[in-house]
Order: sequence, then structure tokens, then C-alpha cells
Amino acid sequence: MSQKRVKRVQNALKTWGVDALIVKDPVDIYYLSGCHVTTGTIVVTKTKCTLVVDNRYLEKCTKETFMPVVLAAADAIVKQLGKAKAVGFSQESLPYGTYLALKKEGIKNLMPLDGPMLEIRSIKEAAEVAKLEKAIKLCYKGIDFVVEQLTTGVTEKKIAKGLELFWLERGGDCLSFEPIIAFGKNSSMPHYRSQEVKLKAGDIVLVDIGVVVDGYASDMTRTFFYGKPNPKLATIYDIVLDAQKKSIKAAKPDMSAADLYGVSKKVIDKAGYGDNYLHGLGHGIGLETHETPYLRPTTKTLLVPGTCITIEPGIYLPNLGGVRIEDMLLITKGGSRTLTSGYPKELCVIPAK
Amino acid sequence: MSQKRVKRVQNALKTWGVDALIVKDPVDIYYLSGCHVTTGTIVVTKTKCTLVVDNRYLEKCTKETFMPVVLAAADAIVKQLGKAKAVGFSQESLPYGTYLALKKEGIKNLMPLDGPMLEIRSIKEAAEVAKLEKAIKLCYKGIDFVVEQLTTGVTEKKIAKGLELFWLERGGDCLSFEPIIAFGKNSSMPHYRSQEVKLKAGDIVLVDIGVVVDGYASDMTRTFFYGKPNPKLATIYDIVLDAQKKSIKAAKPDMSAADLYGVSKKVIDKAGYGDNYLHGLGHGIGLETHETPYLRPTTKTLLVPGTCITIEPGIYLPNLGGVRIEDMLLITKGGSRTLTSGYPKELCVIPAK
Repeated sequence: MSQKRVKRVQNALKTWGVDALIVKDPVDIYYLSGCHVTTGTIVVTKTKCTLVVDNRYLEKCTKETFMPVVLAAADAIVKQLGKAKAVGFSQESLPYGTYLALKKEGIKNLMPLDGPMLEIRSIKEAAEVAKLEKAIKLCYKGIDFVVEQLTTGVTEKKIAKGLELFWLERGGDCLSFEPIIAFGKNSSMPHYRSQEVKLKAGDIVLVDIGVVVDGYASDMTRTFFYGKPNPKLATIYDIVLDAQKKSIKAAKPDMSAADLYGVSKKVIDKAGYGDNYLHGLGHGIGLETHETPYLRPTTKTLLVPGTCITIEPGIYLPNLGGVRIEDMLLITKGGSRTLTSGYPKELCVIPAK
Repeated sequence: MSQKRVKRVQNALKTWGVDALIVKDPVDIYYLSGCHVTTGTIVVTKTKCTLVVDNRYLEKCTKETFMPVVLAAADAIVKQLGKAKAVGFSQESLPYGTYLALKKEGIKNLMPLDGPMLEIRSIKEAAEVAKLEKAIKLCYKGIDFVVEQLTTGVTEKKIAKGLELFWLERGGDCLSFEPIIAFGKNSSMPHYRSQEVKLKAGDIVLVDIGVVVDGYASDMTRTFFYGKPNPKLATIYDIVLDAQKKSIKAAKPDMSAADLYGVSKKVIDKAGYGDNYLHGLGHGIGLETHETPYLRPTTKTLLVPGTCITIEPGIYLPNLGGVRIEDMLLITKGGSRTLTSGYPKELCVIPAK
């Protein structure tokens, strides 16, 4: 929502090999204009940037943004494009039908790009980092809240709902995602949804939660032992923690996302649990909980100062349980800074009560 | 999430002119399988229906759904398609990049369809209507809550946040959308976002809110007068109410969405406010707040028994204020049933205090 951001996009047009960019994703539109819309278009050319909205948004957006706002019409986008020859768009977010509609509107040389706006958004400004840190502070309190609720017989769902209320009452905008509170063997499913399952002594407790504050998302995971730890799960805890710490230590500018994933994979492979590491090492985070870069074996993206990512390796043993430990990391000139370093992550046993 | 729903899709394949359907939208995947995933694919052929997910979801989904679940792999979708020749997909939701990826995977004859799953979902089962009614009951309480909060000096944002907590504490899953609580002239912006704006005597108060219960969304609008009504706004209130009531009366099976919109447009045009009616008459509602059919001048879709739609005409006078009145309607064999008839909508003056 600043002229500076528009300038960054305009500077990137050449790198992307286009003369203009069509932006349709509502989060991207908000990032550039400061306007919340469900439908709309920003057209960025080398010299101009215009927001195109329908009647429902015209008055609101005109009041809210610094950029010119025009009413959507059959030729509104074409007009804004002027003489632009190659016109880029995000192939990750633009629906196929919208692509056809743009072509039908008379836009030639539409060029699919790999998340151009996500590339811009992946480098966070200082003010954005400050907002992420605000969200993280409230996230810490959320983990404390969950730990306080852990008593024999409490259900995952009760804690998840309580956590949401706890956060909203303390200034959270909304959840970053449905809280994952997983007891015992449920923790072996990385994207588990909390259910009416009761906590019992001896359960491992996986807590993967996040809250949005001022538009920016936090995302952290801590895994606790409620009562005496299962020895096998305690062992994988140490392996995951080792992989997580080594990944954080290795993270630095000009390293590829794939290579950073590789650091964690190597540790887990060596320990013999490679097949139980079911996902990537982490993902970008900001206005959305899941942004680029994704730390996967195939992601060639290089980390740069300002990239904010999660580091969250995990090992999952079906019908026994899983361990995941997740921090948020900011890539800096000298290496990285763990934004969530304020919350301990050593193996923690909570006495059953 | 039933074999019956799969059967409905299979029966529709022929109408769509395809042998199979690729389903990628997470809400559609949930509707058919009962599984919440962020990424995945359902492949429906004439004789089979399979869920394809990555490692993160394999264990979870296998436990949750009745349909076969297979692990995502380079050729997983091609394999499931078998000998299907024409393969449909939703052009509204499938990103262009995913379309390219499917082609690259070797899927030929990909055929863009107009929201095929939304077409299926637009006809609600009795159990779905029951869930919508549950969400509506909680929505009523929400409107009451808002009305109780109306005191001089209270801010839009305070009420919006209070409402969210009120609902979550009473069994709401989440908001259907960011509550629109608009005081005074802010109400002239149909998609306004509540701000730190204080209520004053003489303000019109537009309340457009909804809550999700058991996965199903409610969506209602009532417009109140806080203190003595502005005469012009009182006049447009009567016009909007007239347009709304006439639209509800006219709604019946085999009528087109465009024709129903036309009923409301005619009333508002005749009163001389055609240019201030800034949006369609309404939209389908169910698992998502905004579903097809959209009641717009161009929508040829015919209403059928089971269609659930909102009826929400509005008139907006910039820098003065706006009026919108919204009910949820179920199309029945004999005509329609207003699901939200339990909440009054005659002009209501709340004494300023």
C-alpha cells in the first residue's frame, strides 16, 4: 500500500520479461493499494498503476488508496494497458476462466509468470517485520494458554476453540489457520484437525498454531509430552530438534530453498527416519500464512535478506505419534534472525494432572 | 461427503459433455469426500471416484472418507482417469498454472466447465437446509446483539469484534465474512469495512453479517435508524423493502436468475434510483457465503427446488447513506420459503441513547 511497492513491481517488470502486470489476487491488491476487495484488478505498467473495481467498491476504494481508481467496464483493463506488449499475470492464482476472459477482452501476449507478486511480497519491509513480531508475541501467549489448558480429559477441540477466543479478545484479527492441537497418535497426521478427543497421561501433544495481527500471520509449532514420554517419541524429538537447529544455523542469503531443505533432510535421513518426514521444511509467511518460497527439494529460489520463512521439520510415526518444531526466521545480510526465539523448544514434559 | 453426491456428479457428466471431472477446489473436495485439505484432487469418472492427496494428508484422509485415497504422484491423476476421453474441470477455480501442469502430466482434451461442482452444490439436500437454518438462528442472535450495542459513541469496529466473540462463544465456527457494521454515510459503500467510527444520533446503521455453523454460512442484512430518520433515507428504505418483498414473492422454480434480478431492478428503476442500485440482487449460499447462482442481469441459470439464495437489493446515496435488506430464500416446488422470515424487516427506529 505504497508508491514504493508499486515502484518495486515496475522495476521487476523487465526481469519478468513483460511490459505490464495484471494483478487479480485480493491479497496482492491489498498489498499494493491498501484496499480490501473480493474482486478487482490492478494494472501496473512501466509508468502507471491503476485499480479497476466494480460499482460496489468504487466509492470505498477511491477514499482508501493513493492510486487512481477506475470503474470496471468491458475495456477498462485494455485501456489501462495502453501500448504494453507483453502482459504478465500470476499463473498460480489466476483462474483459467479469467485467463480466457482477459484474452476475449482483447489482451494479447498474456504471459504466465510464477507468482510475480509473491516474489515481491517475499521480501519484507522493516514495518512488515515489526507486524510479524507483534503477531508472534500474541502467538507466544497462545502457546502458554494451550499449555495451561492441558489437563487429563480436556479435548483438543475445546482447547482450539478456547485459543481462538483468547486471541480475539487480545487483539488478534483472526486465526492464521485452524489450530492444530493433536493428542497422542493424532499427531502423526501433519494437517490434523482438532476433534473431540480427550487428553490422557502419556500423550504427546503437538501444538501448531498462529494468529494474525494487523494483517500479518504468525505460525509456530511446539510439541510437548504430557506425562512420561514414550521413549521412541522422545528419540525422534531430539532428531527433529537437531534437524531444526541445523537448518536455522545454515540459513543465509544466496542459499537456495532446496539446499536449506536438504540440510534438514540429511539429518533426518541419517537418523533413519527419511520416509517419515512427510513435507517440506517450511514456507514463506507474511500477509498470508503460506507464501513463497516453499522450502522443498525442487525450489530453486535463493534466500535474500528480508525473506521470512518458517523452519518446521517433522517426523511422523503412524498410530504412534509425530513431532514437529517450528520457528519463524528472517533472512538477514549476515545470515538469519529467529523471530520466534523467545519461546523455548527443548524437550518439555508437562506433569499429567 | 456421500456416495449419493458422487452419483449426482456422475449423472451430470453426460450433461457437461465429459467422461470425467477433475475437482481441485478444497470446498468441492470437502463436499464430496468430507476431507479438509489445502491441496488435493478428486477424480470422478463414470464408474469411480478417487481422492488423490500428498503425504501430509494420506493417513488423515484414509481415516476420514468413504472413497479410495491414493498418494499423489506424477501420473496419479492420469491413472485414475483411465480411458476417459473428455475431462472437465472448473474454469472458475482452477488456476491457469494448474491447467498447464495437468496438460503436461499428459491429460488430453481438458474441457473448461462453468463451475460444475457449484452447480451440484447449488441444490441443497434437506440436511444442508437444516444446517443453514441453524446458522440463521445464530445470525438472528447476532443482529440482536448488534442492536443492543447501539449507543452514541460506540464504534463500528468495537461492535464487529464483539459480535465475532459473541458468535464464537455460542457455537459459531467462524464469520461468514468480515461483519459490515456501517454508520451514517459509510453505509453508502456496499462492501464497507467497519472502522473506528463513532455512532451518533440520526445515523442510519447498516448491519450485514453472517456466521458459519456446522460448515454452513448465514448472511443477512438489516438497516436500522438510530434516532430520527433522515427523510430521504426513510424514503429509500421503503423502496428497497418493496423491491425486496416483490422479488421474494416472484421467486419460483424455472424462473431465471436474471429475471428475478429484473423484478427488483424494475421497482428501483421506477422509483428513480436505478443508478444507485450498485450490485446484483443476491447469490447462492451454502458451504461458501458466495456461491452460484448470482442473481445478475446476465445469469441465465434457472432456479430449481433446493436452490438457496440471498435476496438483497440496495440503494446507495454517496455521502448520505445506503439501505440494503437481505433475506435467505429456499426455492421450493411451489415457489419459495424465506429461511430468515423470523427476523422483522419493517423500518425500525432505535431511540438514540
